[in-house]
Amino acid sequence: MPRNTSTELLLNSNNSIYHLNLYPDDIANDILLVGDPGRADFIASLFDSVIVNKQKREFHTYTGYYNSNLVSVISTGIGPDNIDIVMNELDALANIDFDSREGRGEVSSLNLVRIGTCGGLQSELKPNTPVISSHGLGLDNLINFYAYQFSKAEQTILDALNVQMKEHGLNLAMYLTTSNEGMFAALKELGHSGITATCPGFYAPQGRTIRTPVQYPGLLNALHTFAYQDLKVTNFEMESSALFLLASLMGHRACTADVVVANRITNEASVDYKPALKQLAGNV
Amino acid sequence: MPRNTSTELLLNSNNSIYHLNLYPDDIANDILLVGDPGRADFIASLFDSVIVNKQKREFHTYTGYYNSNLVSVISTGIGPDNIDIVMNELDALANIDFDSREGRGEVSSLNLVRIGTCGGLQSELKPNTPVISSHGLGLDNLINFYAYQFSKAEQTILDALNVQMKEHGLNLAMYLTTSNEGMFAALKELGHSGITATCPGFYAPQGRTIRTPVQYPGLLNALHTFAYQDLKVTNFEMESSALFLLASLMGHRACTADVVVANRITNEASVDYKPALKQLAGNV
Repeated sequence: MPRNTSTELLLNSNNSIYHLNLYPDDIANDILLVGDPGRADFIASLFDSVIVNKQKREFHTYTGYYNSNLVSVISTGIGPDNIDIVMNELDALANIDFDSREGRGEVSSLNLVRIGTCGGLQSELKPNTPVISSHGLGLDNLINFYAYQFSKAEQTILDALNVQMKEHGLNLAMYLTTSNEGMFAALKELGHSGITATCPGFYAPQGRTIRTPVQYPGLLNALHTFAYQDLKVTNFEMESSALFLLASLMGHRACTADVVVANRITNEASVDYKPALKQLAGNV
Repeated sequence: MPRNTSTELLLNSNNSIYHLNLYPDDIANDILLVGDPGRADFIASLFDSVIVNKQKREFHTYTGYYNSNLVSVISTGIGPDNIDIVMNELDALANIDFDSREGRGEVSSLNLVRIGTCGGLQSELKPNTPVISSHGLGLDNLINFYAYQFSKAEQTILDALNVQMKEHGLNLAMYLTTSNEGMFAALKELGHSGITATCPGFYAPQGRTIRTPVQYPGLLNALHTFAYQDLKVTNFEMESSALFLLASLMGHRACTADVVVANRITNEASVDYKPALKQLAGNV
């Protein structure tokens, strides 16, 4: 492994990791990831006790005890690029010695559950319904920068997705990643499950037109009508594909549980998704 | 224009725009964009008076008077996907009637200057040097979702960039956007200027390897050695290509002024970039 230079592994002047502002001892092995910093603050308020409370930018981290278990909750901000920051920095916290800037030897593996909000892409997914991600369909291009090998199962589903997109006239590079099998099996009882399309934006990348025409008006329909055996594209958000990609490359375990805030097929929006999100967070 | 549905143009229950949490009257015509919410708070502390102060997630907005001019400062968070959110919502605030959900008629054009931090890609760009963006080189894929037409000048530079990438063995879809000509002419006296490569991540997408191998170890060198006439790729960050793309599509004016925090060619990092950033913000 190359010795990480000061411009590759950026540390703050107090030797904490650059964006997250944390030391290796600040995080638990079991970590909840949320997008909204306010949601991290809220979840930490439910802890029995908080032993670490640090913030920088949109990255709010709390570590404490919940039902006698040591857990962390960290806000990632929005999108695959923020997941790139959070996952590389969590991995460095878990696996790099900041003094030598070298790996610590045996890889320490983190358990990461993302709790978020999403748009529903199947009409049965009413607002406030939980969806557990079996896969992340990456419409972002983060995979171009990492050396990732698809599994045979991932490649098979991706091939079917590529056929579907071509049939609908969409010329969009995509990738498919998988959530952790054991975590998914444990969480899927909480709600619906399927492929979570992950977008590098909230407006045109999720098929929304306000004043600016989208390149692919048929994007929603192509995703909505896709099926491979029993597997469907259930929902839209902005983080899961990147989370599963980097967890897989780094040897961590990750899954996503999202609450539907708007159904894009029936055009129903949630009036207040927060109680459903609180219940979901309590169950994972 | 289609009537924007409640799942396309999302409004909060108080009728403010979804992520930014603002009403149309809350923003000035001249807007500073920063990434870090703390930086918006800091810049607002320099205002003579603040008349709007609203927050949601990482989006902190202040509107007030600075030297008798009404200005806003808004934090965007990190990355092209956050720029997608901020630009669509600013455009809706400026140009959509929230009651009818229709356009207001003649397009209201905003002046947007992004003040940020970046990595330097030319050895003369020492830490704390300001760089003004003539162009954004999009290594993100936001352009795939919008119907954008390159100008002839953009296409010429992009063709040269594509040749350069192929010669260096990189197979990366890219796009090129231009900052506002008048704004760039006014700002370029403040420092160096050139093409700002814009990445959908901070680690592998900017050629950083900590523990996970990158797909393109030659990315930095390919960008560093590119030249088209006098034009070089001066710096790396995560927002400009998307900002210029959406400003151009929506009829707004945008430019970026960044302070170098780390030089990726000489491996020098800034000890404290904040004084340079404060000075830059005061000058734009």
